[in-house]
Amino acid sequence: MSLTLERDRFVETMTEQAEIGATDGGGLHRLALSEEDREIRDWFRDQLEALEIPVRVDEFGNMFGRREGTNPDAAPVLVGSHLDSQPFGGIYDGALGVIAPLELLRTLEEEGIETDHPIEIVNWTNEEGSRFQPAMQGSGVWVGAHDLETEYERTDADGVRLVDELERIGYRGDLPAEPQEEYEAYLELHVEQGPYLELNETDVGVVTGVVGFFWGAITFYGEADHSGPTPMHFRNDALVAAADVITQVRRIPGTLGERTVGTVGYVDVEPNSINIIPDEVTITFGFRDPDDEIVEEAKARVLAEAAAAAEREGVDWEWEERHRSASVDFSDACIDAVQSSADDLELDSMRLYSGAGHDAVHMTDVCDTSMVFTVSEDGKSHNEDEYTSWEDCYSGANTLANAVCRLAGAEFDP
Amino acid sequence: MSLTLERDRFVETMTEQAEIGATDGGGLHRLALSEEDREIRDWFRDQLEALEIPVRVDEFGNMFGRREGTNPDAAPVLVGSHLDSQPFGGIYDGALGVIAPLELLRTLEEEGIETDHPIEIVNWTNEEGSRFQPAMQGSGVWVGAHDLETEYERTDADGVRLVDELERIGYRGDLPAEPQEEYEAYLELHVEQGPYLELNETDVGVVTGVVGFFWGAITFYGEADHSGPTPMHFRNDALVAAADVITQVRRIPGTLGERTVGTVGYVDVEPNSINIIPDEVTITFGFRDPDDEIVEEAKARVLAEAAAAAEREGVDWEWEERHRSASVDFSDACIDAVQSSADDLELDSMRLYSGAGHDAVHMTDVCDTSMVFTVSEDGKSHNEDEYTSWEDCYSGANTLANAVCRLAGAEFDP
Repeated sequence: MSLTLERDRFVETMTEQAEIGATDGGGLHRLALSEEDREIRDWFRDQLEALEIPVRVDEFGNMFGRREGTNPDAAPVLVGSHLDSQPFGGIYDGALGVIAPLELLRTLEEEGIETDHPIEIVNWTNEEGSRFQPAMQGSGVWVGAHDLETEYERTDADGVRLVDELERIGYRGDLPAEPQEEYEAYLELHVEQGPYLELNETDVGVVTGVVGFFWGAITFYGEADHSGPTPMHFRNDALVAAADVITQVRRIPGTLGERTVGTVGYVDVEPNSINIIPDEVTITFGFRDPDDEIVEEAKARVLAEAAAAAEREGVDWEWEERHRSASVDFSDACIDAVQSSADDLELDSMRLYSGAGHDAVHMTDVCDTSMVFTVSEDGKSHNEDEYTSWEDCYSGANTLANAVCRLAGAEFDP
Repeated sequence: MSLTLERDRFVETMTEQAEIGATDGGGLHRLALSEEDREIRDWFRDQLEALEIPVRVDEFGNMFGRREGTNPDAAPVLVGSHLDSQPFGGIYDGALGVIAPLELLRTLEEEGIETDHPIEIVNWTNEEGSRFQPAMQGSGVWVGAHDLETEYERTDADGVRLVDELERIGYRGDLPAEPQEEYEAYLELHVEQGPYLELNETDVGVVTGVVGFFWGAITFYGEADHSGPTPMHFRNDALVAAADVITQVRRIPGTLGERTVGTVGYVDVEPNSINIIPDEVTITFGFRDPDDEIVEEAKARVLAEAAAAAEREGVDWEWEERHRSASVDFSDACIDAVQSSADDLELDSMRLYSGAGHDAVHMTDVCDTSMVFTVSEDGKSHNEDEYTSWEDCYSGANTLANAVCRLAGAEFDP
């Protein structure tokens, strides 16, 4: 037997949350610690309090609500995601993973279903990392990956400090931003942000881990000469070397793995004038793959290409690491709970790695973890065109709800 | 018999002018219509007035001084260049072409040498085009290539209008900015800004014309997706298409001509984030060659490459012309005057095209024109490392002086 959420109310609640920070283009502009973030947080608090679930806010603004279990010694199952959005982002990214467990708590309450373990719902502060860096900040502080005081001092583009914004919107709580006890498991529902579920005509994704990634930057130093009288063989053009590397970053993934991706997203050219040969060009590069060795090999290959390009163009170069994140394998217990729930609901599912980072990555430091993915039409996310049908949202929400019930030991024996 | 300038005074005068707007790095920062420009203009006026040559300033700030000839019906020979500099530019670019004719006038006066034609010296306003665009502005207005009122309204990076700066420094004159009579010829001495004279171990360059050039911009429009979960075959990466074109701009000149050059100097990437696949990338491109058909062919080839790159990457694209300048052939009479002067001075010379634009290009609309080039060490210009030995400066100045005397009909029969 499976639990099913009340579909109409679930869709209504998803629609309701999407009104706070709604954009004319049908998306969401609900940046971390903005007025819209305050509003959605107040709304979220109201929904929990209506269920007589008190809300705890920690000193980094992470919000928790807890429905007690029947066994006082059982560790809680944590479930949630984030209510902040990208600038002009979509209405599903993050919110779906908070609204689905809210609906689960409502359903458990209405149907009087008890669980052995407590169930905690969480809204993490600043998952998106667009107004304040880094991304996945609230969960990162909570698990101890980031230092609280350091993150307090982060500023947005206007120089506003994060801690001041937390205070301003009234969400700098008293609770230490760290686990107060052992946790049984963490589950998170999220849109895939990639095309694999749609391509495979599946209803729901069972997420087995998150790809590892490496971010770096390469700078080439050439000579800024006049673009007219300088013969081609007298040039040391930093941009040409950079362009060679950009084309190789496009090519390298195809030589390595089915899931390998590589991207140059950022370019800075000096002096950036139509009439001057560029003398200093910086590009970033990033590679991701489920296999950390492949990421390392991609990095080695791009640096070899940079060396060759610099030699060919007669320019100097250097590189630096910007960020590195090892791939994460989720726990079998949580993956099995998600898989069994999808099977019991008779949903078509597939196992896949997440290509993007999520709060769940940090949570693997604390307890068993897995995720449920829903279909992302055309794989689009981080913009207003992000779309997941209500049917697919509902499939994902039910899969999550039953997986939580399994891990929390629900009395209806899912 | 050749005229020779007084070497020590010539070097002293070159050194003196380089003190106005001098940089710590041994260069010049004397932007058009700045305080430094006012100062060098005042200094230039003083030098001419000391020779009892009155200075005329036209409504665009171009400064003229005239030494009368003996034949009242003979058209004047104009000679000069510009006293403004690039930001942190060199001390020779422009200034050499004003100081050399100033020394010529001093020498003619001292030695009591008369000429058949009047000799006019000119300092053109804003040749460099760095503070206010376009470059070669004063001469362009004067020959009628640009509209005076339009150019008055140009603003610098701080939004300051050109005409207001002309007024402020006191160099908005009353004289119409246009030729008041026929001109016999125009000659200009300038540093080569390229390596050919040095490579060929010559003393001086006889400039036969100026290469033609084409400037354009290409924009690619792709899709801004998340750099993690988007598989390589789902991408429409505008930057990859642009990089393909940049590498081809490096390659195309070598397939076309010995003097063909091609440059991408400017890149704009949107959204320019390490974690997002670029969706809009604009690059500029420029090609130059003495043969306009080669320039046209280079343009056609780069657009073919852009089409192929866009097709390969599945992105849209468009392009626009930014500027086009046909190649210019200088007049045989002026070229011969320069060549004969160099030969009489027993200087090693070579004939070459200028790879950069100069005020002389505009002057070809008005009268017979040529230029004298001096050696540029390593071909460097537009920065503080620009260097020409005093010996080479002096060789160029003497060549110019004698060519002017030839065209003006000096009584000493050069």
